[in-house]
Amino acid sequence: MAETGPTALVAVELQPVGRRVQVAPGTRVLEAAQASGIELVSVCGGEGTCGTCRVRAVDGVLSAETAEEESLLSDTERGDGWRLACQAQVCGALRLEIPPESLSTPQRLQIEGQAVDFTLDPPVTAVDLVLEPPSLHDLRADTTRLKEALDQAGMGGTAIGLRRARACSNRLRAQRWRGRAAVYRHPDGTGALVSIQPAGGVLLGLAVDAGTTKLAAYLVDLASGATLARVGAMNPQTAYGEDVVTRITYANTADGAARLLHERLIEELNRMVGELCEQAGAHRGQIVDAVVVGNTAMHHFVTGLPVRQLGEAPYVASVSDSLLASAEEIGLKLDSGAMLYLPPNIAGYVGSDHVAMLLASGLADTTQTVLALDIGTNTEISLAHKGAIWACSTASGPAFEGAHIHDGMRAAPGAIEHVRFLKGAFQVQTIGGAAPVGICGSGILDAVAQGLEEGIIDERGSLAKGHPLVSRTESGPTCLLVPAGRAGHGRDVVFTRSDVNEIQLAKGAIRAGTELLLKEAGIGAASLDSVVVAGAFGTYLDLESAIRVGLLVDVGRERYRQVGNAAGRGAEQLLLSRERRMLADHLAKRVRYIELTVHRSFTEMFAQSLGFGRGSPPDTGAPLAD
Amino acid sequence: MAETGPTALVAVELQPVGRRVQVAPGTRVLEAAQASGIELVSVCGGEGTCGTCRVRAVDGVLSAETAEEESLLSDTERGDGWRLACQAQVCGALRLEIPPESLSTPQRLQIEGQAVDFTLDPPVTAVDLVLEPPSLHDLRADTTRLKEALDQAGMGGTAIGLRRARACSNRLRAQRWRGRAAVYRHPDGTGALVSIQPAGGVLLGLAVDAGTTKLAAYLVDLASGATLARVGAMNPQTAYGEDVVTRITYANTADGAARLLHERLIEELNRMVGELCEQAGAHRGQIVDAVVVGNTAMHHFVTGLPVRQLGEAPYVASVSDSLLASAEEIGLKLDSGAMLYLPPNIAGYVGSDHVAMLLASGLADTTQTVLALDIGTNTEISLAHKGAIWACSTASGPAFEGAHIHDGMRAAPGAIEHVRFLKGAFQVQTIGGAAPVGICGSGILDAVAQGLEEGIIDERGSLAKGHPLVSRTESGPTCLLVPAGRAGHGRDVVFTRSDVNEIQLAKGAIRAGTELLLKEAGIGAASLDSVVVAGAFGTYLDLESAIRVGLLVDVGRERYRQVGNAAGRGAEQLLLSRERRMLADHLAKRVRYIELTVHRSFTEMFAQSLGFGRGSPPDTGAPLAD
Repeated sequence: MAETGPTALVAVELQPVGRRVQVAPGTRVLEAAQASGIELVSVCGGEGTCGTCRVRAVDGVLSAETAEEESLLSDTERGDGWRLACQAQVCGALRLEIPPESLSTPQRLQIEGQAVDFTLDPPVTAVDLVLEPPSLHDLRADTTRLKEALDQAGMGGTAIGLRRARACSNRLRAQRWRGRAAVYRHPDGTGALVSIQPAGGVLLGLAVDAGTTKLAAYLVDLASGATLARVGAMNPQTAYGEDVVTRITYANTADGAARLLHERLIEELNRMVGELCEQAGAHRGQIVDAVVVGNTAMHHFVTGLPVRQLGEAPYVASVSDSLLASAEEIGLKLDSGAMLYLPPNIAGYVGSDHVAMLLASGLADTTQTVLALDIGTNTEISLAHKGAIWACSTASGPAFEGAHIHDGMRAAPGAIEHVRFLKGAFQVQTIGGAAPVGICGSGILDAVAQGLEEGIIDERGSLAKGHPLVSRTESGPTCLLVPAGRAGHGRDVVFTRSDVNEIQLAKGAIRAGTELLLKEAGIGAASLDSVVVAGAFGTYLDLESAIRVGLLVDVGRERYRQVGNAAGRGAEQLLLSRERRMLADHLAKRVRYIELTVHRSFTEMFAQSLGFGRGSPPDTGAPLAD
Repeated sequence: MAETGPTALVAVELQPVGRRVQVAPGTRVLEAAQASGIELVSVCGGEGTCGTCRVRAVDGVLSAETAEEESLLSDTERGDGWRLACQAQVCGALRLEIPPESLSTPQRLQIEGQAVDFTLDPPVTAVDLVLEPPSLHDLRADTTRLKEALDQAGMGGTAIGLRRARACSNRLRAQRWRGRAAVYRHPDGTGALVSIQPAGGVLLGLAVDAGTTKLAAYLVDLASGATLARVGAMNPQTAYGEDVVTRITYANTADGAARLLHERLIEELNRMVGELCEQAGAHRGQIVDAVVVGNTAMHHFVTGLPVRQLGEAPYVASVSDSLLASAEEIGLKLDSGAMLYLPPNIAGYVGSDHVAMLLASGLADTTQTVLALDIGTNTEISLAHKGAIWACSTASGPAFEGAHIHDGMRAAPGAIEHVRFLKGAFQVQTIGGAAPVGICGSGILDAVAQGLEEGIIDERGSLAKGHPLVSRTESGPTCLLVPAGRAGHGRDVVFTRSDVNEIQLAKGAIRAGTELLLKEAGIGAASLDSVVVAGAFGTYLDLESAIRVGLLVDVGRERYRQVGNAAGRGAEQLLLSRERRMLADHLAKRVRYIELTVHRSFTEMFAQSLGFGRGSPPDTGAPLAD
């Protein structure tokens, strides 16, 4: 009934897709992946002749390399630990990295987002130049000549740094003293040369939302503001820890580990830039500005800032102010002079992605009462009321990412994303319509909500003993969602009492944070003009289910806005508007950050928020006594 | 009589000492060096057991490696082309690099210099800090905390860039929230964090005069202004071309050659920094600021700027404005945040070393009439008169460096540095008192001046046919300076008609430049309040000889100041004074640069300056008709 096998089986974890499976030693990795419901690219059908099923062991050991692998993989690839899934055999407990190109169906990634309007005024702007060539009667140095031409074009006082100067002389000559300069305009009106592009060239910008689990990247035309291409990918750091706390621990324990995490991330971003350029018919040398947003830990990993102090009490950021640097400094391969901007972090666990989300969703400049949630392993919550903004972060755990859930998985093909109880049984809808192999966040949320409605789950989260779908397995009380015969891997898909508990902890933390902010503002949920729910999970979740389990407050559905990847849209805005950058800096200073771990009422509020009773926590419309 | 041998002999050039010798193929390099008068370190006496006589072939081929070399040199050394001089044999024409540690007596390098007074106000200054550690009730980010502490210490608005931020968190914790910050103060009063040093640490600065032939480096205490250590070395680029034009050609012809020239130079500077620190008992992590001066080509080589356009008409610089960068950007290994400043270049062939010299010698802020010359392969000349400054550069050639002279050599042991004609013969004084092996710049100048006095050389530069010391060899008319029996290498040391011609060309170019500047200012030499002669050759030259041959103008000897390495002193001042940096920027804009190659009167003036007649060129005290 359960998929646990004899004791000789070993655990194989597939990342970043987030699947786990138990297999016998000697099983080929390709088969182990199939057993977990993950299809790898394998053009030759596992014959060891095509070399497409590349994987890498992050933890644990694989069997020795075969002759096929020696012939199909380059020395560099083998040195980097790459193996072929059809050749390598599982020897013991194992964590595997599956690169995107080895997955037969890409994972679903939320990269679209809604955003407010703003005025196009990009910090990096184009200045067209025609210079007089030097002569014996005009011996000005190349950069002097260039500065004077920029001056004449209205960009007086533009600085040319050493790195830029190195590129200028040869490029100006190659372009016969013509070109389109990309100039960064500081808030104080002075400028800095970024690049000399060919005359008439299109200047592009890169916006990145670097999530703990997912990366989203956008290629933007800086002149028109149009998004030319979008690419999503899994964060390759997932192989080193699903949540940022684990990654920080990893970064602090092994020598060079922090650098490795940084480099893996940048490597993947560079690959994504290549994909963006291919989509748009552009080249990376045209990209002259970049904006990266992420939570504080991702912000530090991207920039190569130390993360040790983020992992130790009192968990402070190295940098919270906005950062202006060169993209080259963090290893991004764009135009060699491309700028890089990271908006400010609000606190150790309220990062620049939240700032970007607040910008894009209009919270930064609203006079209304608006609640905004970005639900993830950490959930950031902000509340705007009468021009003030409160924010907090709450450790909601990875349950909505499908982790710590018996049959949990991320939003990949075969994941159950929606559940309804009809005619005495659960009906499921999977991503891509594939046969179900696991449950992702929105599916678990639905399952719990439907379970509550049907009386399969009670107000305390226990499974109803007498219900025909509930049984007791070695995983404890278990409810059958999909019987083995209809599952993609031939085993039951279930949820357990323990899974329900994970959801209780997650929704309890989020709801307690929400209630605390309402309390700080002295209002009740009924006062909310609107509720913004951002992020991938926030987009796909069923509002009714979220309200039924108590994750979200019970206000009119018309007040809810599911805005998708608003952080990504906010990053795009920061590429396109100097005013938005100023607003971001201002916002980070304005926000009143509430540290929940030291707040008097949080524990009480959290305890009240764990149950599933309708009306709990007390949704009184008035502040609690403190 | 002459050292030219049978046609089977091949030419061996030893760099950077600048000696050439003809030897038979099969001669060991150690013996070839000895034959040229250069002693290499050879502790084992050439037995191939000590490994001290390392050399490298820059051009040409040596015999195959011996077993001794395989055992005494590391794989890396062998990969880098290092050989042992006692093992390797000359096979054909050859150019050799002799590293400083292989020379038994170091070359003489001018690193002392005189300078005017100034007020101590270093751009990089120390700020002592004691920070409140973070707590759950004080969650400010590390850099925010640091900025606020700097603010309280009077350094408000100090920026902390990404690279600095990366180092701060761990260092502040390691130092228990105390330290001495090094802060760079921009002219506009804003600051930028350079480094966090241990509390009470001494902040040091590095000043470098990067000459075409010689490098001089100084370690300076930024708080007291004291020079703690001085080191001189040969420029390793000499092996790739004795003059900058040859190096620029080399840089432009081979792939990666420009980078190689840059890296060799930086490698040597990093070695010199190690030596400075050893002398002063300091470490390179204490060095938080650096100033490098050099001619425009050296400025470009040091900074990695392109040199192609310096080698093609109309010979313009890539950058002439002053540059502020990080030392790390050019590969200098100091504190990882150390700043780097390069004063402005005036023109393609009047570089920042000349600016530094003008600063140190007081020309930048004088109201007097002062002529300043920095004599080298290119001679830079400036004239200050009534607050205006004119400058030019003239191609004086490498004769005063001992190059293109039959028995010429650089100022190394055994080089004849002074010559007098007494009792019918030349009496010579050598560097280090060693047996003479060649003539350096000041020796040649003396020899020509004495030759003129004795009638051995006539006004047109011809050698007197009937004179007992003059004979005709295959090198043309030749005058005996030291007979073979008294020479260190057992061969005659001579000067030829052709050598005299080289001196005529050199002094003619310098004198014509001088006269043209006087003419521009509308004055004669008699109006000069003082004449500053800078640089190594300028320090060692005999004023009487220089005036006798017409190199220098004939004014009262008391008006002359031989200031030594004033460029190096100027570099030190630029480490220690913000006012000096502003003056440097201002100076470069104020100077009226005269391009001699397009000046109407230069050719005429040059022709007039070639002879040795007293009173030529016309030293009329009044401007020439234009």
